[in-house]
Amino acid sequence: MPFFSQYDEQLTPAEMELVGRARRFCAGAFSAAIHEAYLRGEPFAREWITEWAALGMLGLQAKAEHGGHEASFLCKIRVAQEMARHGFAAAFCLNNLQGQVTRISLHGSDEQRRHVLEPLRSGAILAAPAMTEPSGGSDLGSLATTARRVDGGWSISGTKSWVTNGTIVDGITLLARMDEGGELATFFVSLGGGDSVGCHEILLPGARSFRLAALELRDHFVPDWALLSRPGEALRAAMEAVNAARVHVAAMAVASLHAALCEATRYCSSRQTFGKPLLAHQGLQWELAEVSIRLEAAHALVFRAAQLVNSRLPAVTAAAQCKKFAVDTAIWGIGQCIRTMGAIGASGTQRLSMQLAEVRLAAFGDGTNEIMLDRIGRSLAKDYADPVGSEHRS
Amino acid sequence: MPFFSQYDEQLTPAEMELVGRARRFCAGAFSAAIHEAYLRGEPFAREWITEWAALGMLGLQAKAEHGGHEASFLCKIRVAQEMARHGFAAAFCLNNLQGQVTRISLHGSDEQRRHVLEPLRSGAILAAPAMTEPSGGSDLGSLATTARRVDGGWSISGTKSWVTNGTIVDGITLLARMDEGGELATFFVSLGGGDSVGCHEILLPGARSFRLAALELRDHFVPDWALLSRPGEALRAAMEAVNAARVHVAAMAVASLHAALCEATRYCSSRQTFGKPLLAHQGLQWELAEVSIRLEAAHALVFRAAQLVNSRLPAVTAAAQCKKFAVDTAIWGIGQCIRTMGAIGASGTQRLSMQLAEVRLAAFGDGTNEIMLDRIGRSLAKDYADPVGSEHRS
Amino acid sequence: MPFFSQYDEQLTPAEMELVGRARRFCAGAFSAAIHEAYLRGEPFAREWITEWAALGMLGLQAKAEHGGHEASFLCKIRVAQEMARHGFAAAFCLNNLQGQVTRISLHGSDEQRRHVLEPLRSGAILAAPAMTEPSGGSDLGSLATTARRVDGGWSISGTKSWVTNGTIVDGITLLARMDEGGELATFFVSLGGGDSVGCHEILLPGARSFRLAALELRDHFVPDWALLSRPGEALRAAMEAVNAARVHVAAMAVASLHAALCEATRYCSSRQTFGKPLLAHQGLQWELAEVSIRLEAAHALVFRAAQLVNSRLPAVTAAAQCKKFAVDTAIWGIGQCIRTMGAIGASGTQRLSMQLAEVRLAAFGDGTNEIMLDRIGRSLAKDYADPVGSEHRS
Amino acid sequence: MPFFSQYDEQLTPAEMELVGRARRFCAGAFSAAIHEAYLRGEPFAREWITEWAALGMLGLQAKAEHGGHEASFLCKIRVAQEMARHGFAAAFCLNNLQGQVTRISLHGSDEQRRHVLEPLRSGAILAAPAMTEPSGGSDLGSLATTARRVDGGWSISGTKSWVTNGTIVDGITLLARMDEGGELATFFVSLGGGDSVGCHEILLPGARSFRLAALELRDHFVPDWALLSRPGEALRAAMEAVNAARVHVAAMAVASLHAALCEATRYCSSRQTFGKPLLAHQGLQWELAEVSIRLEAAHALVFRAAQLVNSRLPAVTAAAQCKKFAVDTAIWGIGQCIRTMGAIGASGTQRLSMQLAEVRLAAFGDGTNEIMLDRIGRSLAKDYADPVGSEHRS
Repeated sequence: MPFFSQYDEQLTPAEMELVGRARRFCAGAFSAAIHEAYLRGEPFAREWITEWAALGMLGLQAKAEHGGHEASFLCKIRVAQEMARHGFAAAFCLNNLQGQVTRISLHGSDEQRRHVLEPLRSGAILAAPAMTEPSGGSDLGSLATTARRVDGGWSISGTKSWVTNGTIVDGITLLARMDEGGELATFFVSLGGGDSVGCHEILLPGARSFRLAALELRDHFVPDWALLSRPGEALRAAMEAVNAARVHVAAMAVASLHAALCEATRYCSSRQTFGKPLLAHQGLQWELAEVSIRLEAAHALVFRAAQLVNSRLPAVTAAAQCKKFAVDTAIWGIGQCIRTMGAIGASGTQRLSMQLAEVRLAAFGDGTNEIMLDRIGRSLAKDYADPVGSEHRS
Repeated sequence: MPFFSQYDEQLTPAEMELVGRARRFCAGAFSAAIHEAYLRGEPFAREWITEWAALGMLGLQAKAEHGGHEASFLCKIRVAQEMARHGFAAAFCLNNLQGQVTRISLHGSDEQRRHVLEPLRSGAILAAPAMTEPSGGSDLGSLATTARRVDGGWSISGTKSWVTNGTIVDGITLLARMDEGGELATFFVSLGGGDSVGCHEILLPGARSFRLAALELRDHFVPDWALLSRPGEALRAAMEAVNAARVHVAAMAVASLHAALCEATRYCSSRQTFGKPLLAHQGLQWELAEVSIRLEAAHALVFRAAQLVNSRLPAVTAAAQCKKFAVDTAIWGIGQCIRTMGAIGASGTQRLSMQLAEVRLAAFGDGTNEIMLDRIGRSLAKDYADPVGSEHRS
Repeated sequence: MPFFSQYDEQLTPAEMELVGRARRFCAGAFSAAIHEAYLRGEPFAREWITEWAALGMLGLQAKAEHGGHEASFLCKIRVAQEMARHGFAAAFCLNNLQGQVTRISLHGSDEQRRHVLEPLRSGAILAAPAMTEPSGGSDLGSLATTARRVDGGWSISGTKSWVTNGTIVDGITLLARMDEGGELATFFVSLGGGDSVGCHEILLPGARSFRLAALELRDHFVPDWALLSRPGEALRAAMEAVNAARVHVAAMAVASLHAALCEATRYCSSRQTFGKPLLAHQGLQWELAEVSIRLEAAHALVFRAAQLVNSRLPAVTAAAQCKKFAVDTAIWGIGQCIRTMGAIGASGTQRLSMQLAEVRLAAFGDGTNEIMLDRIGRSLAKDYADPVGSEHRS
Repeated sequence: MPFFSQYDEQLTPAEMELVGRARRFCAGAFSAAIHEAYLRGEPFAREWITEWAALGMLGLQAKAEHGGHEASFLCKIRVAQEMARHGFAAAFCLNNLQGQVTRISLHGSDEQRRHVLEPLRSGAILAAPAMTEPSGGSDLGSLATTARRVDGGWSISGTKSWVTNGTIVDGITLLARMDEGGELATFFVSLGGGDSVGCHEILLPGARSFRLAALELRDHFVPDWALLSRPGEALRAAMEAVNAARVHVAAMAVASLHAALCEATRYCSSRQTFGKPLLAHQGLQWELAEVSIRLEAAHALVFRAAQLVNSRLPAVTAAAQCKKFAVDTAIWGIGQCIRTMGAIGASGTQRLSMQLAEVRLAAFGDGTNEIMLDRIGRSLAKDYADPVGSEHRS
């Protein structure tokens, strides 16, 4: 069975066409370009974003009336996987942009759509969610960014760290604490102009394509229309989105590992030592067989969570479980694939080092392993309550 | 989502009723009985087989015209899982009996059915497949049991080892090498009467419910009607069955681990140390969370392979992958569950030691880990052939 | 290099003679006897304790003036390892008895020695430390056993659980809370006579040679001379002993794994499949090679901690580290050895199942893995304080 | 106990002074300089080699009469560890240079010493061993480099790959097959001048400080005096050196991991989340405790092998065991340390990413994991021959 067939069976013909379009794009000049940028220690060129947008991909889940494709979550995953096979960071970042388009198309106000939807969809302007603050990742109780009511809008002050695409985005979506009442609200913040915004790149050796940055806002003005989620609603909206994001990261990690295993298998089939292909030596063959086992387990686990998200069923535990397992497995597995290829696997002729360096970062995005364990741990007693010896789930 | 819901959604109402019937039976007096037998160092009582047969369970997959339920492979798995939650060995052995009934019902000749079908279905006589020989498990080239043509049948000589239910079966299905031509054929061999059969129990400390035995045949006569697969056809039939068997073992291992995790979670929720429940201590909570992650990964992987088998799609690699992963995970995971419970987890008040001792044996049934890795390894180049940078699976 | 040579190089000729004496005893009829008891689901016979005592082994560390050998800690470990190669539980239990003799010989009062030293040394009476209470293992703050001052002694009430050799001991050493002042003191409690003592065996399937029991004392009288550690001193004495005990358990786990690896290597060298010995198949050979790597790592780590204890240097962290690593490695490694041998490895013809079942219990004795992690974790900041870039440990 | 005290106790005061000298050098400007070079995607500056040489460190093991320190193997390890704490690649490469000096000083002819010893010791010229050929790492039977006898010397042709310091060395030591007789001999090959040498850098993303290159020799002339090991002797000399090299790499991997654990512990002690230091959260604390356990096990295992090498005892198995375990543990452990620090651990403000990228390469130097398993596997039957139940090692 082709590896991705479980997903593909559930896609519409139009969605399959989108996946094919993504596949052709990613397997073209793009593939070498992102690897070469990595070898130079640089992020991939911004023009690739424009080309991807021109392909219509930033509107993947946007409404048809807004020029989008209304693709399902499963389709979105498949498109991202096609890119993650060539480069995890690129897939992570381009999909991050797409998510912002989707949000405005599906949940934005008419005025918000008028201001930013088409520029976002076409890649004319870029936006990113900005969740984390320097003082701590997941501790929303200590969120320090404030929104002060001013004439015609709000004045925002605070610093957001670890912003994906942070060095090139024109706008960010952020949570801020309202000066009146202290509740959290979400804003779309245009960054352009003036000196009220500071941008500091966070250097990530080997993974600069994430273009991470800290963005500092100092009494930065946002107009009335930029309020995305009202006080009291923002938190819930953020929580809903995070499950999908976790499954999505996990799915990309699986695709990166799949590509690495294909590469290692191909190399070890062709390279000869002691008179036969590397892959014919039992010890090494078993090492790759074990990689395949855990890859398939991650793949199956992610698919199950993806179906829950796709069907809008509860997915907190499933998303956390698949994210931790898929990312752990990809980090381990790509490392194993590199090892079986010998030193050549770690050299610049192969993209496995790039994939490994980039996938390692996936352990931090959308919640660390520690947060995943915490989410799962809290509901263990509910999720695995079934006593031996009694009627269960009746 | 209830743990087994993926399966249950695909069952018919009649199949769901069978699963419920199995659940009630297993959760009743049976559950304590098999555990008590373990604590006494004995196999569970043979009468439980009779009761299970009386419930109609030995005819689960047999044709309706033969008194069976024509249940799907997925239903068979679910029934076995309901029992494996209480005891892995019992589930393994009772399903082993069921498989023999199914074989005769679906593929037997009229004469074979006339001779043994109803006795097998009702549990009046018991049968087992006998695959392994003392000289080696999976090396069919060295199979040494012979069938010599004699008047009205064949004379069989040879020894089969590791026969499940071997100390109590009345018949076995075996491969033998024909004295003419040297090809392999399959026979149904009635064991009763005379001194041409020797039975030697293989003592498995902690896992005697498998009732393993070596059976030695010395010029043992079988009549003409007992030929199940002709020379040249036997091997293929055996190979087809083995994928299903592997998935089935894996599914039972998952169910045993699920029950162990439920038990550990329940215990650690109620037991207090340092002023709060064990489960509220983060370190231990994360250990059980990790067990849940790998359990769900195994569950998802097994389900995917089960669907392939259920749909009669190629499943060699998928079956081998899920068997190794599920059994490894169950052995590791049940051990972790025991550990989190402290010494009480290893004591006779809990069934986790029994489950662990029995599931360990699953690593050997239907192919060892080494055989699984070999099966997967051989087709790696075919299964993971997709080069980075090129169109794939188009 | 012979496996145990690091230890042996540091022993005196007299100590080497003791090790050799232990080796010959253990490798004799004793070896088969403990395995046969296991196969019957029983503890090994009490007479073996008498024979071991007759060999002088219960006085291993006692003073020469008391009939002992004044052996070093390293010698004690080597003697225990010689037995652990044949059976972990027997080694654990016999050394447990020895520890009680040592305590009275080295730290007891004249009156205490007069009452119990020679009977203990000769095995005429047996004693055990009783640390754990039903309400929790390591939480001394909640210790509930009380000692009430009465005429000529104390009246002890409380229950001690998980007492090694509990079903056969004549006396126990326990901590109790003084009714006056509430501090903890240690007593030697003779159990004999009357109905003020209840003994309840804790059934440990597969590991009955530990003879674990819960002992319940109801207003049980102990005379004045039985006070071993005064209020306020007892806790410190207990803490000092526990590091040595952890290293000792770890050393026995290493010896059990070493024996298992030797057994698996021997079997896999002789057993042929596909035309060559199992050990000549690269995949399996590498699995055993990996076992050997971790075994040697555990061995080296335990030796380092043993030297610290032997030299009376601080060893809290080192003892905890080696105990967790050695026990984890032995459980994993013996399991791997069983697996490489196929189903025969799990059968009653081999002692590996017994060793695995018994070593699993070592995870609970003298502090669980969780307690080990806690001990290590608390002093991480002190033990690994060295910042990169600065002068260290100068 | 200070981490490295086991080693330090066995060093002379003069050796301890050398270790201190190395420590001060490495912890100075050098530390930041190698990290900054990494962040720029470049190898560290060649001048650091000159400074290190000026410190006398390239003559660490050379004879006193040649200006060396005659340091023991244990001292050499400690010096390398002091550097590996700051950067693994730098430590690997500088010690590689030192090895060439040692070889000429201890085993060279007078003429060889006259030609190259002092330039090598002072760092005026640099040399490296060149073992691997493009067609395969460890398969000496297929070695393709040839040495043809010509007037006054030999003409060498062939390609050596993966040469450490390859882009800057002035000479290499290589094995070549003699055109007469076909046996292997070792030569010191000066690379300078002419067009008979090609140098091709092998780009190793994230690990350029190794300066790996492929060197191609085309009818390259070497004079008579350059023959280091005669035909028939070369192989044995190479084999003897490799055990020491493996232990040495393992020791450096341990030091890199130790530094990473210190860094992670320091960071997690200072960083606060949810109202307390990261290190006070039990889950994370246990993760670092587990890193410490395996670090100490690797440390103890390496030390044991180092003692064997230091005492010129057989060390093939011990060297292979410690190399695989130490490198595996360092790769895993540094990754864990990064993870516990959150995304900051992967950023350019920390050197852990550099250490991880560099230590990954250690898996390939001086024999891959696969070669290690093969070496261990071959002698399992000899090393672990001890049957249970019989007198052993008597």
